[in-house]
Amino acid sequence: MTLKIVLAGARGRMGSAAIEAIQKIEDMEIVAALDYKNDGLFLHEDKVHDTEIGIPIFTSFDRLVKETQPDVLLDLTTPDVVYENMYNAIKNGIRPVVGTSGLSFEEIEKLTEFANEQGIGGIIAPNFSIGAVLMMKFSAMAARYLEDIEIIESHHNQKVDAPSGTAMKTAEMIMNVRESHIQGHEDEKEHLAGARGADIEGMKIHSIRLPGLLAHQEVLLGADGELLTLRHDSFNRSCFMPGILMAIRNVLERKDLVYGLENILD
Amino acid sequence: MTLKIVLAGARGRMGSAAIEAIQKIEDMEIVAALDYKNDGLFLHEDKVHDTEIGIPIFTSFDRLVKETQPDVLLDLTTPDVVYENMYNAIKNGIRPVVGTSGLSFEEIEKLTEFANEQGIGGIIAPNFSIGAVLMMKFSAMAARYLEDIEIIESHHNQKVDAPSGTAMKTAEMIMNVRESHIQGHEDEKEHLAGARGADIEGMKIHSIRLPGLLAHQEVLLGADGELLTLRHDSFNRSCFMPGILMAIRNVLERKDLVYGLENILD
Amino acid sequence: MTLKIVLAGARGRMGSAAIEAIQKIEDMEIVAALDYKNDGLFLHEDKVHDTEIGIPIFTSFDRLVKETQPDVLLDLTTPDVVYENMYNAIKNGIRPVVGTSGLSFEEIEKLTEFANEQGIGGIIAPNFSIGAVLMMKFSAMAARYLEDIEIIESHHNQKVDAPSGTAMKTAEMIMNVRESHIQGHEDEKEHLAGARGADIEGMKIHSIRLPGLLAHQEVLLGADGELLTLRHDSFNRSCFMPGILMAIRNVLERKDLVYGLENILD
Amino acid sequence: MTLKIVLAGARGRMGSAAIEAIQKIEDMEIVAALDYKNDGLFLHEDKVHDTEIGIPIFTSFDRLVKETQPDVLLDLTTPDVVYENMYNAIKNGIRPVVGTSGLSFEEIEKLTEFANEQGIGGIIAPNFSIGAVLMMKFSAMAARYLEDIEIIESHHNQKVDAPSGTAMKTAEMIMNVRESHIQGHEDEKEHLAGARGADIEGMKIHSIRLPGLLAHQEVLLGADGELLTLRHDSFNRSCFMPGILMAIRNVLERKDLVYGLENILD
Repeated sequence: MTLKIVLAGARGRMGSAAIEAIQKIEDMEIVAALDYKNDGLFLHEDKVHDTEIGIPIFTSFDRLVKETQPDVLLDLTTPDVVYENMYNAIKNGIRPVVGTSGLSFEEIEKLTEFANEQGIGGIIAPNFSIGAVLMMKFSAMAARYLEDIEIIESHHNQKVDAPSGTAMKTAEMIMNVRESHIQGHEDEKEHLAGARGADIEGMKIHSIRLPGLLAHQEVLLGADGELLTLRHDSFNRSCFMPGILMAIRNVLERKDLVYGLENILD
Repeated sequence: MTLKIVLAGARGRMGSAAIEAIQKIEDMEIVAALDYKNDGLFLHEDKVHDTEIGIPIFTSFDRLVKETQPDVLLDLTTPDVVYENMYNAIKNGIRPVVGTSGLSFEEIEKLTEFANEQGIGGIIAPNFSIGAVLMMKFSAMAARYLEDIEIIESHHNQKVDAPSGTAMKTAEMIMNVRESHIQGHEDEKEHLAGARGADIEGMKIHSIRLPGLLAHQEVLLGADGELLTLRHDSFNRSCFMPGILMAIRNVLERKDLVYGLENILD
Repeated sequence: MTLKIVLAGARGRMGSAAIEAIQKIEDMEIVAALDYKNDGLFLHEDKVHDTEIGIPIFTSFDRLVKETQPDVLLDLTTPDVVYENMYNAIKNGIRPVVGTSGLSFEEIEKLTEFANEQGIGGIIAPNFSIGAVLMMKFSAMAARYLEDIEIIESHHNQKVDAPSGTAMKTAEMIMNVRESHIQGHEDEKEHLAGARGADIEGMKIHSIRLPGLLAHQEVLLGADGELLTLRHDSFNRSCFMPGILMAIRNVLERKDLVYGLENILD
Repeated sequence: MTLKIVLAGARGRMGSAAIEAIQKIEDMEIVAALDYKNDGLFLHEDKVHDTEIGIPIFTSFDRLVKETQPDVLLDLTTPDVVYENMYNAIKNGIRPVVGTSGLSFEEIEKLTEFANEQGIGGIIAPNFSIGAVLMMKFSAMAARYLEDIEIIESHHNQKVDAPSGTAMKTAEMIMNVRESHIQGHEDEKEHLAGARGADIEGMKIHSIRLPGLLAHQEVLLGADGELLTLRHDSFNRSCFMPGILMAIRNVLERKDLVYGLENILD
């Protein structure tokens, strides 16, 4: 049996990568693209993607459901439409797999409650890279034993925000298992402000920005006589695809909505 | 209540570090040193360790048990005596915590059976560094998702054997969760023999030996567009102490013998 | 005054990147593309590159020279045509900047002699990445003081050959300044063949091949109590452009042909 | 002919390491220890060092010179006595090799002038590790081509000051060859203060402090599509010895005083 997927966000770069990845999977098919324009056209007619088999574009969720009866919604859109897309999916018994970040805490809570009531499996993952998620998960596991931690995240110099979202998420996951405590020497002196990095419950975060860099993070956990380093390098968008495919299969087997890919890795 | 420990291997460097570490713990006390010579002397009289409170040396296990009634045997000796020490400990209801490597598979099996019959908790750990054990454990966890793996282990150039025991143990743990498969290009050519390293079920192991180095290992797990690197640096012997202390407390609560510190980390 | 460049190899990916890089430079212009076909067309008509200003294609070197009078030949072609292109350039007083690898030692010698006789500046560079060339240059400089060296080169698993050309070149540059000597323990034992890597005059080279990786190299130089690591990561083709632009300016000022970008970095 | 050395600072750990290193060199001999106490005793009588051949202690520089006629003063003392020691050495035609840091800029200038007038070779080196000095030297060389730079220095958590002296010295050497410029995105936002590190002419310095660490530094130089990383790890005090021995030989051949080991590495 073929798994039928509706894709929202086909025009983005992540959407484009997802089309290519899913086309290689024998038992998966993208049966429809959800968009706000070009209803009735096919993706290749809209020059969105050079797919062999035409994927029809729908602007109406209801009509899309009736005509294609999808199993899963893969949503790679933007914060302004993702909530509605997810709500419609859950209402229609379609499992949402969502990579869009920017949903508020309240929205996530409402959608989780709604999905669980309906018994519809779903996943919202701010990061679909399995390697990155394992780095975060292992950091939290190790932090129970090695409690002095610094994070170095490195990105290209076109990134505006520091620290990165992944570094903040890593710190949060560590904070859940580790007591806050002062790190470094108690009389520590910064002769140049900022040298010791950003502080978050004692942990330090350092943000590197250089031309050439892509997306990298190192979590350093130190103890007497030893150092454990967990590093992830993300070289291109293809690193998100295995996580997306794994999530698509996983939501079919569950009856609740989870937040974070780490919850479906064991 | 104070935990009473008998130490075997007090004259070695690990033994010496263990004395210092345990002396700092309020509810632990080394009540005796087990040795083959100098019965009746104290460790400081034998110039073994400059301990404040004299630790008496025993050459007879039976007499040691009668006079000091220890809870735990910490064995940091050599392969030729460790089996007998452990056997005697289990027989006398003393929990063994053993860092000596070199026990055969059959010996470990016999001791495990004996300890489990007697309901005596124990642990044999080839590596007491929590950081190193986490690196190995995480490697095996990650290998289920990122199946292409290379290990780089780096040691000082006075190390005779390659690959290191830790690298081999890591590979074994990975082999338990991952299918063997050819890595690299199928038409791969080594223009200089050895360039691609040692092969073990498709995994590659590379051994670096340089003056200056201590003990380091990196496990590289690659997938499309990403790399996860798990690295451990061991800078000195003090990195083994937290694992030893954790094991001493853990064996009191268990009724079986386990092999590998990873089994008492959750 | 504008520097007039003829490009050979416009249809390749390096050629395409070079067109984009040169178009951003105010005082440089690509006045012609040298090719074996499509004489008389413009690059955009051949769908080679979407350049704003048409670059005319020539199949005849002589006619190209007469009609465009270029200062510099930038050759990013293949081993089978590069010798003739360079010879023609030198004969016509056009300075060659050549990134094509695969010229034989004899060919390089002949071209060098010819260029020097004619007083024509030129450069053949197997690697135009300034960072990679500095890594190699620094390795050779440091090898005079830190004589125990291992090289780890890491590439994607679609690379057939091991070790990489850059690793071999690095080793050669080090061999010029360092005496051959046995590294590691004199009684060293490989329990798994290949663990200690490829040997070249005592130095060890280790080749990592993993999906996800791009092109990376680390040179480790060890001595008592310390380690110096020189690492280069090449993330994409744009890293070659600054070296190409630097070479184009440099050949105008010199009257001889040099091999290797390191000769124009001071 | 044997090179006669007077050692100031024999009671320190660096002094102790220097005695061991020099004892292994055939044509070098420590003929005297300069100290403020225990005149007339030998080092082993003062329990300073367990040397086979007794090294006599002198409290008077004049008498030391008359009785032992040394060629070189190796000064590994403290800021309060080093100036006078160096002055006395130069006055008596003894070449100073000085590892003590803490001399003021004015003192260095005066001593340099005095040594150059007298034609006495000498060297003051804040860091005698050849690897560390090469890392700094290469950073400055590379900074001419790769102008976006971040420094990560990592030390044990007992270090009070941040950034480290080596990081500051590296930054200074880079500032001499590179124009100050803003690095990172022009609209960069720090959501947690300090994330982007300390700023020094656009360069960023990040200080890591963790238990277990020793002394490490990484200089990252980025450009389009590439990253050059120069890293030094200092594992123990023995890494300073080759630099000290090299300096002892070098000062015999020169007639001026230099500041920084980089000046005698070519």
